[in-house]
Amino acid sequence: MHTIDEFIQLALKEDIGPGDITTDNLVAPNTPGRGVIVAKQDLVIAGLAVAEKVFKALEPTIVFEAGYADGDRVAAGSTVIRLTGSLAGLLKGERTALNFLQRLSGIATQARAYVATVAGSPVKLVDTRKTTPGWRVLEKYAVRVGGAHNHRMGLYDGVLIKDNHIAVAGGITAAVAKARQAISHLVKIEVEASSLAEVDEALAAGADIIMLDNMDVDQIRQAVTHIAGRALVEVSGGVTRDRLKALATTGVDLISIGALTHSAVAVDLSMRIEPDKGP
Amino acid sequence: MHTIDEFIQLALKEDIGPGDITTDNLVAPNTPGRGVIVAKQDLVIAGLAVAEKVFKALEPTIVFEAGYADGDRVAAGSTVIRLTGSLAGLLKGERTALNFLQRLSGIATQARAYVATVAGSPVKLVDTRKTTPGWRVLEKYAVRVGGAHNHRMGLYDGVLIKDNHIAVAGGITAAVAKARQAISHLVKIEVEASSLAEVDEALAAGADIIMLDNMDVDQIRQAVTHIAGRALVEVSGGVTRDRLKALATTGVDLISIGALTHSAVAVDLSMRIEPDKGP
Amino acid sequence: MHTIDEFIQLALKEDIGPGDITTDNLVAPNTPGRGVIVAKQDLVIAGLAVAEKVFKALEPTIVFEAGYADGDRVAAGSTVIRLTGSLAGLLKGERTALNFLQRLSGIATQARAYVATVAGSPVKLVDTRKTTPGWRVLEKYAVRVGGAHNHRMGLYDGVLIKDNHIAVAGGITAAVAKARQAISHLVKIEVEASSLAEVDEALAAGADIIMLDNMDVDQIRQAVTHIAGRALVEVSGGVTRDRLKALATTGVDLISIGALTHSAVAVDLSMRIEPDKGP
Amino acid sequence: MHTIDEFIQLALKEDIGPGDITTDNLVAPNTPGRGVIVAKQDLVIAGLAVAEKVFKALEPTIVFEAGYADGDRVAAGSTVIRLTGSLAGLLKGERTALNFLQRLSGIATQARAYVATVAGSPVKLVDTRKTTPGWRVLEKYAVRVGGAHNHRMGLYDGVLIKDNHIAVAGGITAAVAKARQAISHLVKIEVEASSLAEVDEALAAGADIIMLDNMDVDQIRQAVTHIAGRALVEVSGGVTRDRLKALATTGVDLISIGALTHSAVAVDLSMRIEPDKGP
Amino acid sequence: MHTIDEFIQLALKEDIGPGDITTDNLVAPNTPGRGVIVAKQDLVIAGLAVAEKVFKALEPTIVFEAGYADGDRVAAGSTVIRLTGSLAGLLKGERTALNFLQRLSGIATQARAYVATVAGSPVKLVDTRKTTPGWRVLEKYAVRVGGAHNHRMGLYDGVLIKDNHIAVAGGITAAVAKARQAISHLVKIEVEASSLAEVDEALAAGADIIMLDNMDVDQIRQAVTHIAGRALVEVSGGVTRDRLKALATTGVDLISIGALTHSAVAVDLSMRIEPDKGP
Amino acid sequence: MHTIDEFIQLALKEDIGPGDITTDNLVAPNTPGRGVIVAKQDLVIAGLAVAEKVFKALEPTIVFEAGYADGDRVAAGSTVIRLTGSLAGLLKGERTALNFLQRLSGIATQARAYVATVAGSPVKLVDTRKTTPGWRVLEKYAVRVGGAHNHRMGLYDGVLIKDNHIAVAGGITAAVAKARQAISHLVKIEVEASSLAEVDEALAAGADIIMLDNMDVDQIRQAVTHIAGRALVEVSGGVTRDRLKALATTGVDLISIGALTHSAVAVDLSMRIEPDKGP
Repeated sequence: MHTIDEFIQLALKEDIGPGDITTDNLVAPNTPGRGVIVAKQDLVIAGLAVAEKVFKALEPTIVFEAGYADGDRVAAGSTVIRLTGSLAGLLKGERTALNFLQRLSGIATQARAYVATVAGSPVKLVDTRKTTPGWRVLEKYAVRVGGAHNHRMGLYDGVLIKDNHIAVAGGITAAVAKARQAISHLVKIEVEASSLAEVDEALAAGADIIMLDNMDVDQIRQAVTHIAGRALVEVSGGVTRDRLKALATTGVDLISIGALTHSAVAVDLSMRIEPDKGP
Repeated sequence: MHTIDEFIQLALKEDIGPGDITTDNLVAPNTPGRGVIVAKQDLVIAGLAVAEKVFKALEPTIVFEAGYADGDRVAAGSTVIRLTGSLAGLLKGERTALNFLQRLSGIATQARAYVATVAGSPVKLVDTRKTTPGWRVLEKYAVRVGGAHNHRMGLYDGVLIKDNHIAVAGGITAAVAKARQAISHLVKIEVEASSLAEVDEALAAGADIIMLDNMDVDQIRQAVTHIAGRALVEVSGGVTRDRLKALATTGVDLISIGALTHSAVAVDLSMRIEPDKGP
Repeated sequence: MHTIDEFIQLALKEDIGPGDITTDNLVAPNTPGRGVIVAKQDLVIAGLAVAEKVFKALEPTIVFEAGYADGDRVAAGSTVIRLTGSLAGLLKGERTALNFLQRLSGIATQARAYVATVAGSPVKLVDTRKTTPGWRVLEKYAVRVGGAHNHRMGLYDGVLIKDNHIAVAGGITAAVAKARQAISHLVKIEVEASSLAEVDEALAAGADIIMLDNMDVDQIRQAVTHIAGRALVEVSGGVTRDRLKALATTGVDLISIGALTHSAVAVDLSMRIEPDKGP
Repeated sequence: MHTIDEFIQLALKEDIGPGDITTDNLVAPNTPGRGVIVAKQDLVIAGLAVAEKVFKALEPTIVFEAGYADGDRVAAGSTVIRLTGSLAGLLKGERTALNFLQRLSGIATQARAYVATVAGSPVKLVDTRKTTPGWRVLEKYAVRVGGAHNHRMGLYDGVLIKDNHIAVAGGITAAVAKARQAISHLVKIEVEASSLAEVDEALAAGADIIMLDNMDVDQIRQAVTHIAGRALVEVSGGVTRDRLKALATTGVDLISIGALTHSAVAVDLSMRIEPDKGP
Repeated sequence: MHTIDEFIQLALKEDIGPGDITTDNLVAPNTPGRGVIVAKQDLVIAGLAVAEKVFKALEPTIVFEAGYADGDRVAAGSTVIRLTGSLAGLLKGERTALNFLQRLSGIATQARAYVATVAGSPVKLVDTRKTTPGWRVLEKYAVRVGGAHNHRMGLYDGVLIKDNHIAVAGGITAAVAKARQAISHLVKIEVEASSLAEVDEALAAGADIIMLDNMDVDQIRQAVTHIAGRALVEVSGGVTRDRLKALATTGVDLISIGALTHSAVAVDLSMRIEPDKGP
Repeated sequence: MHTIDEFIQLALKEDIGPGDITTDNLVAPNTPGRGVIVAKQDLVIAGLAVAEKVFKALEPTIVFEAGYADGDRVAAGSTVIRLTGSLAGLLKGERTALNFLQRLSGIATQARAYVATVAGSPVKLVDTRKTTPGWRVLEKYAVRVGGAHNHRMGLYDGVLIKDNHIAVAGGITAAVAKARQAISHLVKIEVEASSLAEVDEALAAGADIIMLDNMDVDQIRQAVTHIAGRALVEVSGGVTRDRLKALATTGVDLISIGALTHSAVAVDLSMRIEPDKGP
């Protein structure tokens, strides 16, 4: 989790900079406080460990108690987290912790809804690389929390051969062969195909996964029948929730959806803080 | 812009990691290419300089030509940027550049719409600290590009005294006096008030700005009349676009809106890349 | 305090580099030691927390006990700090801790003397950006410990419009309007003025603070009368301790003094360390 | 010079942070400007390359022309540097560049004066580790520019055995032997001695340099005679400029002076900037 | 290549630290020089781009001309690289550039020899994670240059289920299912098996690759026959060059060899530098 | 040890990257485990503290118990370290910890063998700057653990004047004088000499150490006699273990050997890990 610790430091630095000139001047360092983080809407919670790290980075002695685990549904009005410890720490961490929680829970909540749309189908909904720069690992985690799945993490852990690569490599067959020769045997090769002819060439070349590009539902169904389990089949691009149900009936293995990350909005969580007057 | 350069490096590292195993193995380093980035919807463009930096960080010789400037409206179907240079560089930078452009333009586009809602009113719409961790400077820039305004950048460049600070400092008067004594004379003090009595105490204490908390439109109107220009007046919290028009008629100076950043979604921009076969 | 922790690491790295070749080779890691840091002159102490962090960064188990708090006057010969723990840690941290303490206390001690010069006057003495690169936050803290005040922290938390800005913006009125439109409502605008005409233009433009430039005491007095509380008044430049008393009688609100940081010299503190032979 | 480049970045970040809210809002990025940096007192200039790096880090196209080289004497009123290029870059870099130049030139100017005090003597004046944290390499460079010499750079490039080390190592003889065994043959060993008996033990142990501690001028003279060239002789501690002349006559090889760095104050340099209206 | 640039900076910092006290004091910065890097033994060259970056990081104007490309065989006595430019830059970069070149070429040379041992066989020789900390990407590159192949880059781009994972996950079937559910569809699953029963369970669970553990050549041959192309087969552990030929005849797809990286030794390359007296 | 902590982080990041996709998905975070690290050959152990830091960086609660200290001989089959704690932490740290231990122990083991070759002679075997980039401090430590000695740490803590420096400085005498004037009095000057004439010039110039270059054993013996203790004598270059015994009889003080670091290979250590079923 080291990289995430660094990112939390970056987040705190951008908010606090050379100092919180309100709290540093008004709240004595040893003043005790307590706080609660409350859901203002129904949501799927994600990012509890990140929120805890935010407060602990500011003040290691703050006690963080979550009544839920990542992936739990939380009803509007429920208290998600109770915090006790340094009032100054709570005030300084509030906004950054909420900013993380609200976005990650927003992604998890939306993913859960997408997954529900295809309930009963074996199809996997997968995310894309359309994530918020800096947040790749966190957002892909929230996607999993919501019940969807991850496509490759980045350009380094999966081969995805697109039309451009095919053009410069001299065709699908050459491209797959070149890639296979160069990469680890633990990494699969996915090839984008926009016709059955291309599908056939990709299969013959030994592609592990075929990404069907720009096909309508009938064409997709036909391609799935044609591929007949010789490779995994992914559909990508322009996937709305309306179209999702239809796509799920085509027999494809995977539907990738950029909106899982790029169109998620923050859910509403708020924090109430008060000086702790003791028991 | 140094901090932004570092953030771009972080974004490229999380996507490319130890190497783009598709492009590195299929595209010779000296292969020329060209690309266009096209708007797939009407939008206000923001982040052109960031997108340029992404490609230049990968390959300084890539030529980046934008047909628009940040803040311009772009119609669906228009070509926003033309790129020529290293095909490998274009392929590796595509996703990261789009991820930046789509989110920043999404914020600018939405801000433009909010501002249009209050056209004709002198009220300023301002953002909040509800930004995406890591993106504070970029998102606040996009808000300005969209025609809205910035609240403080972080906890370091403005004093905002809330109920908690007041409680531990021993009242509004004491809190304002303590803060004034401690801070730079270039920084203003804003005080949250939830009643006219608190407004009066804040004014007497010399607050520069009063934030009206949890008041309905009539109470706000009454408070504005009461303050009568002795301080700037800000309304915050639960500002929907419906309520915005009514708030704009109350005479407040500022309306702060978390949704300007936390609920913006990416606009649709896409990139087409192809090997460059020369003129 | 994260940024300060990083700066302390940088300081330790530049002193210790790949290793303390004297102590590492002569002192067994588990040898206990104790030390005292003693004032060799009358001084105002500042930087105790930084000194503690230096030793704890080297060896978290070192016990650091200060008999004074930042801002206390310490008489020559007094023991300021007692340390017990790893002898190697004490030896390696000694010089860096003293280098911090001596400079910060030097600034606080000098600030206290400047403030005493204007005792009885409501004028505030403020620092400038003439700080030691790398030390901005620390030196401005020491200025406050000494009883003086801070001007803006940097170029990001206050607007200061000088002749150049006025020239390219097309006059004081245009410059103030442009800045006001762009910045947060929590940030004030200060304008440099070298004549009463410029003062009037700045006031009309809505400047929050007027900086009087290159005026003699009589002119300053006249300007203060003219401004009559419509803006804060700052005098800057060439402020010697001799001239300070006269300036304090002019009624200005603020006198900024570069010497508070750029001409402070280290006070004399020394550390005695010895192996700890037990009670 | 990579480490210095990083330190310059740190200095610019602490001053500019998320943005220069005056210049960014009032000066168009492409506005040309020019500036001169002028000596306001007689001084020895040091740090020209650092000042150049500051401006180039902000705007690589700025032209920096120095009429002097580091180590040159500059008379009050002389123009030291002429700059042309981005007005915004000049305005943003001014303070940081001057902060570097003023401190480094202050050290060089003071060192030159100290060296002049012992003109005609073969003694070398050397600095100490009493430098400003973060500035070790820069300040030691300025000391050399002023004509004095450097003691070790840090704890890693020279052995200096003090009373504590001697106590825990079991005497001078044991301490020198242990150190000699452990360190590179390119590094010398210096031993602190406070009596002729200790001097003898250090010589017998093979110390390369003897540091005479707490001796008056007569004792020092006697020690020098006794050592008779068998080791270099250094005097350290409490060296004022008054005492310097006497010490220089004792025949010691080296006099180390903390004041060379810890008590140097900034010299007065100022920058005038103006929009460039062309030739 | 950003990560490699950072690693080169780290390497230069550890060698040069606060300054090259020989060259900085004896060689004027503008002195021209030239150098050649010569093979002192037959070798396969690898790391030319890294060596070039070392010199360019010190002095961007140095001209670096390689007579070979990575992967070329170089005969003892041949000149591999010619350099012209700053003499100081050549002297400072020499050792670091050679340290990179010698180790990377050492790995490539050894890999070439291993690969030659199994010439004619379709088996792929692959590396392991037994690389030098800090050098993972570089060493795996050198392995490819030498004609061998890469196993996964790290723990993030391939699943390798060992006995421990199987024990806590509740058997091979459960472990593979859990992993498949969690990971990207672009990543394969490899399972360690030490008996035919385990091989069968792994195949049934859908493992993409079977790693045969602790089997002799006959057992391996039997396992390969049994697997019959239903998964890739890897042999790992204790692979000496003697045993390699026998293993290559068993029909396994992959033989992983830690020695490719952990037992490679530097090849002998040396650099001759001289002041450049011009043409 | 801060720099080493950073290097360990770098090593863990390159191996784990965004996550261990096997262990993270199969091993619950709170599963207890235990492990032993066992020597598979006779060796001299080095790097125990580094290995401990690797595991503690992943999971601070892991208990690390070493049955040996750095420098101890360990017989094949012996258990060197016992670990208990987080099974996931043990699995993630295993490879990185072993990679450090195997290389550092490999260096120590080889150094011990070289030192044994010259047992009985007062000559010191010293390493060179031919270390693995990134590993300088660690490898030089392992050399000392093995009983050999360190040459300078880098270009910053010792002057080594070679033919090039002599050429541009105008001869040995000028080069030594220039260096002496510029450097700290704690740093020695070594001069490379390839003839008795050069030896004489170096001695006259005051060189502290003479490095004999390209001389055969007889010439070396003659040079040692000629120098007669007026400087330390080092032999460098092409030192094989065969030639070592002869060189040791020549009376030189130091023999530097690049192979101590550049040709060391990893010793064989392995780790067995298992879930901890309790006592």
